[in-house]
Amino acid sequence: MNPIAPTSRTTFVRRPDRGSHERTTVNGILDEALICHVGFVMDGQPFVLPTTHTRVGERLYVHGAMGGRMLRTMRQGIPVCVTVTLIDGLVLARSAFHHSMNYRSVVILGTARNVEDEEEKRLAFSALVEHVVPGRSADVRAASDLELKATAVLCVPIEEASAKVRTGPPIDDETDYGLPHWAGVIPLALTAHAAIADPRLPAGLPIPPAIARYGRSGG
Amino acid sequence: MNPIAPTSRTTFVRRPDRGSHERTTVNGILDEALICHVGFVMDGQPFVLPTTHTRVGERLYVHGAMGGRMLRTMRQGIPVCVTVTLIDGLVLARSAFHHSMNYRSVVILGTARNVEDEEEKRLAFSALVEHVVPGRSADVRAASDLELKATAVLCVPIEEASAKVRTGPPIDDETDYGLPHWAGVIPLALTAHAAIADPRLPAGLPIPPAIARYGRSGG
Repeated sequence: MNPIAPTSRTTFVRRPDRGSHERTTVNGILDEALICHVGFVMDGQPFVLPTTHTRVGERLYVHGAMGGRMLRTMRQGIPVCVTVTLIDGLVLARSAFHHSMNYRSVVILGTARNVEDEEEKRLAFSALVEHVVPGRSADVRAASDLELKATAVLCVPIEEASAKVRTGPPIDDETDYGLPHWAGVIPLALTAHAAIADPRLPAGLPIPPAIARYGRSGG
Repeated sequence: MNPIAPTSRTTFVRRPDRGSHERTTVNGILDEALICHVGFVMDGQPFVLPTTHTRVGERLYVHGAMGGRMLRTMRQGIPVCVTVTLIDGLVLARSAFHHSMNYRSVVILGTARNVEDEEEKRLAFSALVEHVVPGRSADVRAASDLELKATAVLCVPIEEASAKVRTGPPIDDETDYGLPHWAGVIPLALTAHAAIADPRLPAGLPIPPAIARYGRSGG
């Protein structure tokens, strides 16, 4: 895949060594993350709201359940910023200044379009469910026409986008390596615990294997 | 503590039953989360960037290491939105439509002020380190004057803010409870794994207990 062409707005100002415009990097982060944060502007005030997303090729679909505020504004096709962040670890350096985090993040700039076409919307809706639990969309009652109508799905093209990634141990000042402070990384991962059956689930209904062994991280 | 007074911008439009203006709720979420997403506007385009934060009373301090773009804009004291989201679980309903997540989020609207006062900045800087690893700021080389100068710290008052919280099992349509689809919750938590010592750490330097048994979640 060709890298995403950088623009003046997605050229790295700070720490370009951590930046990437490679689609494989960008896609990997978007696909692993469960949620995104969508930024939009209303009356000059920025709003940032969490919601779920899914990637279909070079399009990002965003679930519109993030409040009437956003939707009223976004349906007109307004500029948005969709940011996705995965936290991989705490980086503890010998100096306070060099403390950091290991993370992977993607920033997408673009115009959000409200998905009106019923077939595209139905596909995007299924993809949103599949993104969270692969295989799940075939094992649920599908959305009715009314439910589909009641759900807003927004589409943002992944055209102006960049990733940032930090990995590895702390980088201290050379003169600090002799200091008697412990330094290293505390790895962090979003971990699934044993699934809790709905209290109203009939006895004997088995848990699907994909749910019983659910995991998120690529690693 | 008195609740935070709602404004027209922080009154809940959608699912008011999940909303809260209680300071204990807002503070608990801010204190547990490792990162926030800061939204600001530049030339009409919203930007959303992840960074670290810490709460000191009714002030939120945000680490300014989020790119030259943001800082150039924010130092003038511009409107921001700081959003913090914790993912607690996947909510798998019998219908695609009622799939959801258990989460806790806070949205703060306000004007970010660049912290210029050296003493306030030093305290905020320590608080940022303490927020990530309690006790850590006493076991590192403190920031030099130059390092402090090189770091931007922004302050946002926690005055116009709200929390949203979803907990518990899926809520399906009454007519769907008889369907043969597994339903329930997959709990999720950001989990710390065993710390990895910096390869350049001298042999025999013990790992501090707070790092060895690091955990984030309040539960």
